[in-house]
Amino acid sequence: MTSTPDALVAADRARIIHPYLPASAEERVVMTQGSGCRVTDVHGRSYLDATGGLWLAQIGHGRAEVAQAAQEQMSRLEYFTSFWEFSNDRAVELACRLTELGPDGLGHVYFTSGGSEGNEAALKMARYYHHRRGEPERTWILARHKAYHGVGYGGSSANGFPLYHEGFAPMVPHISHLTPPWPYRSELYGGEDPTDFLIRELEERIAEVGPGRIAAMLAEPIMGVGGMLVPPDDYWPRVREVLDRHGILLIFDEVVTAYGRTGSWFAAQHFGVTPDIIVTAKGLTSGYIPLGALLVGDHVAEQLTAGDGFPMGYTYNGHPVAAAVALENLRIIEREGLLARAVEAGAGLHAGLEAALGDLPVVGEIRSVGMMLAVELVTDKESRTPLPVRPERMPHDVIRRETGVIVRDAAHSLVLSPPLILDPAEAKEIAAGMRTVLERTRADGEIVEAAASTA
Amino acid sequence: MTSTPDALVAADRARIIHPYLPASAEERVVMTQGSGCRVTDVHGRSYLDATGGLWLAQIGHGRAEVAQAAQEQMSRLEYFTSFWEFSNDRAVELACRLTELGPDGLGHVYFTSGGSEGNEAALKMARYYHHRRGEPERTWILARHKAYHGVGYGGSSANGFPLYHEGFAPMVPHISHLTPPWPYRSELYGGEDPTDFLIRELEERIAEVGPGRIAAMLAEPIMGVGGMLVPPDDYWPRVREVLDRHGILLIFDEVVTAYGRTGSWFAAQHFGVTPDIIVTAKGLTSGYIPLGALLVGDHVAEQLTAGDGFPMGYTYNGHPVAAAVALENLRIIEREGLLARAVEAGAGLHAGLEAALGDLPVVGEIRSVGMMLAVELVTDKESRTPLPVRPERMPHDVIRRETGVIVRDAAHSLVLSPPLILDPAEAKEIAAGMRTVLERTRADGEIVEAAASTA
Repeated sequence: MTSTPDALVAADRARIIHPYLPASAEERVVMTQGSGCRVTDVHGRSYLDATGGLWLAQIGHGRAEVAQAAQEQMSRLEYFTSFWEFSNDRAVELACRLTELGPDGLGHVYFTSGGSEGNEAALKMARYYHHRRGEPERTWILARHKAYHGVGYGGSSANGFPLYHEGFAPMVPHISHLTPPWPYRSELYGGEDPTDFLIRELEERIAEVGPGRIAAMLAEPIMGVGGMLVPPDDYWPRVREVLDRHGILLIFDEVVTAYGRTGSWFAAQHFGVTPDIIVTAKGLTSGYIPLGALLVGDHVAEQLTAGDGFPMGYTYNGHPVAAAVALENLRIIEREGLLARAVEAGAGLHAGLEAALGDLPVVGEIRSVGMMLAVELVTDKESRTPLPVRPERMPHDVIRRETGVIVRDAAHSLVLSPPLILDPAEAKEIAAGMRTVLERTRADGEIVEAAASTA
Repeated sequence: MTSTPDALVAADRARIIHPYLPASAEERVVMTQGSGCRVTDVHGRSYLDATGGLWLAQIGHGRAEVAQAAQEQMSRLEYFTSFWEFSNDRAVELACRLTELGPDGLGHVYFTSGGSEGNEAALKMARYYHHRRGEPERTWILARHKAYHGVGYGGSSANGFPLYHEGFAPMVPHISHLTPPWPYRSELYGGEDPTDFLIRELEERIAEVGPGRIAAMLAEPIMGVGGMLVPPDDYWPRVREVLDRHGILLIFDEVVTAYGRTGSWFAAQHFGVTPDIIVTAKGLTSGYIPLGALLVGDHVAEQLTAGDGFPMGYTYNGHPVAAAVALENLRIIEREGLLARAVEAGAGLHAGLEAALGDLPVVGEIRSVGMMLAVELVTDKESRTPLPVRPERMPHDVIRRETGVIVRDAAHSLVLSPPLILDPAEAKEIAAGMRTVLERTRADGEIVEAAASTA
């Protein structure tokens, strides 16, 4: 199809239902090329991709060696099912690699095509594990407000925002939401130590629901859509201890955090805890092809593979091309030392944001782990009142339009998760782009026109 | 990784959780290559793939031109998000192509990475549509026993087999199951005309639940996992009429039936009905890469895109490489005339099965639409009692082991969905392979050892 840019934009408007796109948004940004940390739209405009696509482009855009790996595998064996006794060499190779990289004890792998599928699978695994063990009444799932676990019916039932339930209910029953760890929002804990508060709440909730009725806690180690909420260091070890005491599984949703984003292969390793199941996707292939993988504890796998096996499978389970792409992606992450680079470049970006934005009244907290960062926006630094949202002219939209830097909003925070290969000049460009807009952002959320752009 | 075949098999056993694999199954079949209708395992054994991978390999295995298309797109733009106002040229092009191929009135497209995600989305769309229209109490979904709609929590709640609920419950509430159309099983209808029975049941169920409380009926036009159940010709037009009268949406799950398998682009066209939403995946890319697409009625899309838009999206929505692969796959289907070929080669295979198997006592009905076929196994032709299942030695397993022909079981039927490029010699090989085992299959389900193999 040889279309003009305008024809493509018009066809997009006429034909595509985009997720989360308000009817009022006439604008379309139709990308056509990518390389490194930059993408280019159909009008030839270049953007600096500080969100890494959708938090996944660990190795950056347009890597020829990954395309080559995909082509070779697709020519040799593009697909066969991995149901029943069928398998393929690439899936086996990837499963071995993942269990090498993951925490000890998570020696089994279950494949999906993405994070949403992964959370559906994890929830089913947790209930099924107890069912097989003879505790079928363990059906409840603990989740948290502000959580995001994808948009399958199971995962979205666990999501901690009304947006994911309204108009879609009734949702999957037996899910109970706890308070998220968000130290900057000390008002959530009434002045108490956040972890002390949260552990007491957890114990109380378990007592309310009944410890023998709870299958698992499903949780992002760092909450992404909630606004890159980083828990206190003692949170996960103490949660793990409580859950262990009650026979409750811990499922880490590491769709955002795995494969180097925190500086470790998995955030579980960063926080020094071992979940029973880790759900991954995104960074596993840096988005070059849809793929997800669950790392499953051997004790859980033992139950799932008993008897007639685990009665759940996605068509593309163990897709050989996806596995080949993942293997190449992991090789690149290792060869180029991107775990260390995430720590170093992330620290550099964090420092750059502090220097560029720290003095602005609307900038509350700047926080990060590795190459996951958030700038929490407030009306003022003292009250910490969340900055009001103006849907028609939000800071991240204005930043993109005016500077070409793509960041994402998450409630009243701006979140960043650039490719792990980000260089210092690009980090500086991100910080400068954000400053030019945030320095004109008022406490009521309005962004004053730039002198230059109104001239 | 350079592994011996035995090491690969051992690693598979140690590391991978396969869907639906019984603990008793020691065997592993690790595929490494594919070409046309054949795949080859790590031991060098060749198989004739009469299931088309998992009902999806429309264009056959190992097409170099598809690998080439994937490489080119992956080098140019491997991924960017399609959330909000973002898009990419390949996704737009594919959306335009799909709305050209689909029934009139389904002018909008929503992308997923597969069929399970598609059914989650369709169920949410149906409830959301009524919610937006001001009928939020329309939350019920009509489904059918023997239905299969994937393994997300929503779709599996609609599945019509206990296997998909046991150990996973509580499922998504407000789903009601009806009797499937399965004319060969006349006992289901007490001697009445199947369609008359089913339409009366539908009307009664609607009255019971309350017409103003029902969002949609979700249904496979031909039920796949249920055993390739083909409804009478008047079934879908009469169902559509009833649903229309009550303001209930019709969602066709065409994950198996779309993209030529029935001889039409969509089974909706084959049956001459227009659903409100069509869920597709599999044949859209012939499995070369994970991708799904929903064709959405303009009246539904109008509601979903109003206000703040449709609040649901998968990361890989509109994936540019997946879209490029789909476009190439659709070009091949069109260029090689595979719709007509499905009809012709499917009829040839059907005739070959009749000739080879029709006289066997355990063969009840042989039925087909295009290149979807089933051989329903019974104890004898008069009683039509379903052939008992012997899990440790099922006909499809023995057929594969002894003849290298891969067919699939679906309850007590053997189902076939070969690539649409199947040639007459391959069709003959399938029929002959099935005969050598089914002629030794007794009414109690036991398969007598072949003289040759016991010699």
